[in-house]
Amino acid sequence: MTEGARAFVPGHVTGLFSIHRDDDPARAGSRGAGLTLTDGVTVSVRPADDSVVFLNGERADVAAVAGVLDALGVTARVEAETPLPVGAGFGVSGAMALGAAYAANAVFECGHAENALVRLAHEAEVEAGTGLGDVVAQARGGAPIREEPGAPPHGRLDGVPETARVEYASFGGLSTAEVLSGDTETLSAAGERALDRLLDAPTLDRFVAESRTFASEAGLLTDDIDEVVGDVLDAGGRASMAMLGRTVFALDHGLTDAGYDAEACRIHPAGATLR
Amino acid sequence: MTEGARAFVPGHVTGLFSIHRDDDPARAGSRGAGLTLTDGVTVSVRPADDSVVFLNGERADVAAVAGVLDALGVTARVEAETPLPVGAGFGVSGAMALGAAYAANAVFECGHAENALVRLAHEAEVEAGTGLGDVVAQARGGAPIREEPGAPPHGRLDGVPETARVEYASFGGLSTAEVLSGDTETLSAAGERALDRLLDAPTLDRFVAESRTFASEAGLLTDDIDEVVGDVLDAGGRASMAMLGRTVFALDHGLTDAGYDAEACRIHPAGATLR
Repeated sequence: MTEGARAFVPGHVTGLFSIHRDDDPARAGSRGAGLTLTDGVTVSVRPADDSVVFLNGERADVAAVAGVLDALGVTARVEAETPLPVGAGFGVSGAMALGAAYAANAVFECGHAENALVRLAHEAEVEAGTGLGDVVAQARGGAPIREEPGAPPHGRLDGVPETARVEYASFGGLSTAEVLSGDTETLSAAGERALDRLLDAPTLDRFVAESRTFASEAGLLTDDIDEVVGDVLDAGGRASMAMLGRTVFALDHGLTDAGYDAEACRIHPAGATLR
Repeated sequence: MTEGARAFVPGHVTGLFSIHRDDDPARAGSRGAGLTLTDGVTVSVRPADDSVVFLNGERADVAAVAGVLDALGVTARVEAETPLPVGAGFGVSGAMALGAAYAANAVFECGHAENALVRLAHEAEVEAGTGLGDVVAQARGGAPIREEPGAPPHGRLDGVPETARVEYASFGGLSTAEVLSGDTETLSAAGERALDRLLDAPTLDRFVAESRTFASEAGLLTDDIDEVVGDVLDAGGRASMAMLGRTVFALDHGLTDAGYDAEACRIHPAGATLR
């Protein structure tokens, strides 16, 4: 056992997805595509008699993190820091679960390889109902295409071979758990169609365009988000909505060119790593 | 078509491996484990009437790069720059093939996703006889474990969830093509045993120890390399031989602590990326 360990996990915005349920949480998940971000979550783990989780200095009850610690059979103090908005479609819970898995594996010398840690974190996130595809995307980095749902060895990922500056502006949260527990047939059908078209031409241009079509067809595009996305398009930019949050992401300077205050980062080249 | 594009591909030292031949070059490859390095190869591609390849400013005849350009159906000027020793076990030819695939795909807007580019580069490297596992490892980053041989969708990778400073010192080359075309039964049996033991405890400690056992059992350890590795061990460090080169790699300050002049870098967190 060591004194502590720290992992960095990129943020992740999903642009389009379909839902794939399975009794086995390692096989459940989503197909879809998104962008991992250099703005991410740093997760520190130290041994403790009772498990406790902090997010940006405040006590937080994150079921996926509790699930990871349980699966590893350890109790720990987990501290997460992030500049990302929470609950707004950036995969913060998935990042916390994955970062806790990497760091706790190091601290407690659990002896797992990376795929097993990704699987643990994915299972915990699926069982918590807080996400279906962030963890595997965040373990990969880049602009991940989730070709087949689920964690290793079931899921399969590809990537869009491009990099870009990314801007984002968040106007509030959407409950992932609420959307995932509702009627998702229309959403999934729209997600499958959008993914097929992206696989025909795996570029960032196509990804953002198909994300917009998906958001609209899935009925997830709220009026306020639609207006912001429209403003970016009018200014000649490329933007869509982050799933699931009232958040707009844009490539390059899309949001600032349209007159919005936006955070800026880049596509993250790497997946989760110990620091 | 754009004016040009540039990709960075990490270097890669293999510590242990077994050879898996197949008539289909996408299924052929190696199982094994290694470290990707922040010292790598930057590959620039520009359209040209006739294909020409440069390595560190000199004309170079790299069959794997020619194979990639052929497979993409393009002619280009490819310029690679690297601080790594060439032909000494750092995967420079694999990096050039993979970097050429990423950059040419961008320049000529070929429309491939990342897995297809990795497959192209792996096939070209296998057909050139210059490598069996570097390309898939260099596409992944980290400390890759090649669980199943071959390129996507056939191969399967995992990783050791650790990072470290890496030192290396090279005393000359070994011909990959010569070793691969010789009797490789003993080598592969040793590689399979070493990989099994690494998968039981996927840590960097175990990786370096099993790499040493492999190098010795495979009959690849030359006297001069054995002596350097022994000196690092005597100084309390961890080191083994890079496959295939007369090269020693060590974790942390292993080589300098033992009194050797060594280059220093780190495990690279990411796979190949466009710049």
